[in-house]
Amino acid sequence: MQAAYYMGDRRVEIRDAEPVPPAPGTVQLDVAYTGICGTDLHIVHGAMDPRVSLPAILGHEMAGHVAAVGEGVSGWEPGDAATVMPLVWCGECAACRAGASHICQRLSFLGIDAPGSLQSRWTVPAQTLVPLPADMQPQTAALAEPTAVAVHDVRRAQLTEGEHVVVVGGGPIGLLVAAVTREAGADVVLVEPNPGRRQLAERAGLTTLDPAERPVGEHVEEWTKGAGAEVAFEVSGAVPGIQSAIDALGVRGRLVVVAIYPTPPPVDLFRVFWRELTLIGARVYERLDFEKAVRLLADGAIPIDVLITDIVPLAETPAAFEALEAGRAMKILVDCAGDTP
Amino acid sequence: MQAAYYMGDRRVEIRDAEPVPPAPGTVQLDVAYTGICGTDLHIVHGAMDPRVSLPAILGHEMAGHVAAVGEGVSGWEPGDAATVMPLVWCGECAACRAGASHICQRLSFLGIDAPGSLQSRWTVPAQTLVPLPADMQPQTAALAEPTAVAVHDVRRAQLTEGEHVVVVGGGPIGLLVAAVTREAGADVVLVEPNPGRRQLAERAGLTTLDPAERPVGEHVEEWTKGAGAEVAFEVSGAVPGIQSAIDALGVRGRLVVVAIYPTPPPVDLFRVFWRELTLIGARVYERLDFEKAVRLLADGAIPIDVLITDIVPLAETPAAFEALEAGRAMKILVDCAGDTP
Repeated sequence: MQAAYYMGDRRVEIRDAEPVPPAPGTVQLDVAYTGICGTDLHIVHGAMDPRVSLPAILGHEMAGHVAAVGEGVSGWEPGDAATVMPLVWCGECAACRAGASHICQRLSFLGIDAPGSLQSRWTVPAQTLVPLPADMQPQTAALAEPTAVAVHDVRRAQLTEGEHVVVVGGGPIGLLVAAVTREAGADVVLVEPNPGRRQLAERAGLTTLDPAERPVGEHVEEWTKGAGAEVAFEVSGAVPGIQSAIDALGVRGRLVVVAIYPTPPPVDLFRVFWRELTLIGARVYERLDFEKAVRLLADGAIPIDVLITDIVPLAETPAAFEALEAGRAMKILVDCAGDTP
Repeated sequence: MQAAYYMGDRRVEIRDAEPVPPAPGTVQLDVAYTGICGTDLHIVHGAMDPRVSLPAILGHEMAGHVAAVGEGVSGWEPGDAATVMPLVWCGECAACRAGASHICQRLSFLGIDAPGSLQSRWTVPAQTLVPLPADMQPQTAALAEPTAVAVHDVRRAQLTEGEHVVVVGGGPIGLLVAAVTREAGADVVLVEPNPGRRQLAERAGLTTLDPAERPVGEHVEEWTKGAGAEVAFEVSGAVPGIQSAIDALGVRGRLVVVAIYPTPPPVDLFRVFWRELTLIGARVYERLDFEKAVRLLADGAIPIDVLITDIVPLAETPAAFEALEAGRAMKILVDCAGDTP
């Protein structure tokens, strides 16, 4: 079979790989589709080289079916539809002891710290599997992982029905966060400077705002009759994004920090103090988020048609990375089933 | 009688003033003591000139007795011991409607937006009065306001017994926050680079840390056996202070932002994301904080002897501002009773 490898030096190559037989406690999956994520792009940019062992098989957003189960695995049979929550924690560190094993201090993230799903057969610890409804399209199910990120972000916000929400950043995670908040009964506005991304969001029925056209705080002030938004999500990773999110919030508003800032940006702590705002970090997901993500996908609450802009064969993975790099796609799924031996 | 006025141009002057007779709904107080606060220094630096009408009688940390009550005021008699929670809210704005009237969008802060207590007789709305135990020393009671700030900060942290707490900044509010967390059963360390301030804190029985001697994160790592602190308070207002506070926190740690940052400092949002930290703004206090502050002072939980470094007559208020400016004092109380007519 074949796999997509990150080779270092910004290179992605398709090379032969040997399927890993399922050891005790593990499951071998037939991978149907793998989505390419912003984190995969970061890896290919070299930003995570100290963490990645080369050559590295990337990919952690997937759906497929059980191919074979290792010794001691119960509850899974060949043919079962499954996705993977790609986190393996130590169970012993301070985070695990504090009940936050998803942010374990020695976390192994499959597809970053261990081989990923950009291959036809993927072998993973049995406890990482999450069941899928038998009738769910695998293209839909491949969005479970990024949807789980959004579900976790929204849960961290303790969002309640009827609240005003501002999502800053209209990439795949921003769109998903907006869709999940809408499903939770919030009134949501998506802030995105890129007209193409705004158009996609509007096709998903979302209200959008161009921050270049009007300051976000001013718009939200009018929208909420002077109260400000109860909740904001910073998903852009841009310095003006964090300021827009803070400007949007009313007294005691909550801002969920989803984006990754490699260097500390200036943050308006005066406003945090003055309005008694709360900033909440949110990283990956917990099991209940993953399971809810699968339910939301099954219920049609996620605008998958807008999100998935391309489906390509495994052999075209390098070109898919280039298309994402150039901003020519939203979410690209890689069809990994093509060359199963 | 006399009053201490801010005249603009960094000048504080003692001038004659006329006591304001108690209008309906107001109470006239004999002021015993007024503490000088960091905010008063900010005002004298000109930082709040757009908000202050000159000449302005400063002062909002006080204790005294009721001198006379206006029409329609019930529950107060001349001679009753009282302090003042110096906030007057509109009751109609978004903050008030949201149950956060203490951060009302049209808040009038007595001593900033209206005349303060650096005078012998002070007339205030009756609803701002907070009763004091008859046997409480007025010097002690004059610390109710800054203690209420600390109580509010600790309440915003949702602190529970046995948690590890790092307080960054050892001025009066930092000391008070440390004392209130200690009283709540936390294990607290105070971070302060100034040796004189560390010494005062140690006299109050607090554990201190010199951030120049050892990085705060490293110390806390060892202290908490790798877990990190559950709670930190940023009270320093310094850029390295906010980083120290973030470095001190373990997974899902809570950081209360108490200090005022006039310009947005760089904030390590990667760490906020990575450890799922929460940053919480905290401003002034609510009624229950003020009442708890009075109880803590009555119980002897606040190290007043360490906090109050000087007591001066009203006539020496200008010199007191200079002493605070030069860092020669912690908390100075002004004896306002001297020249009551």
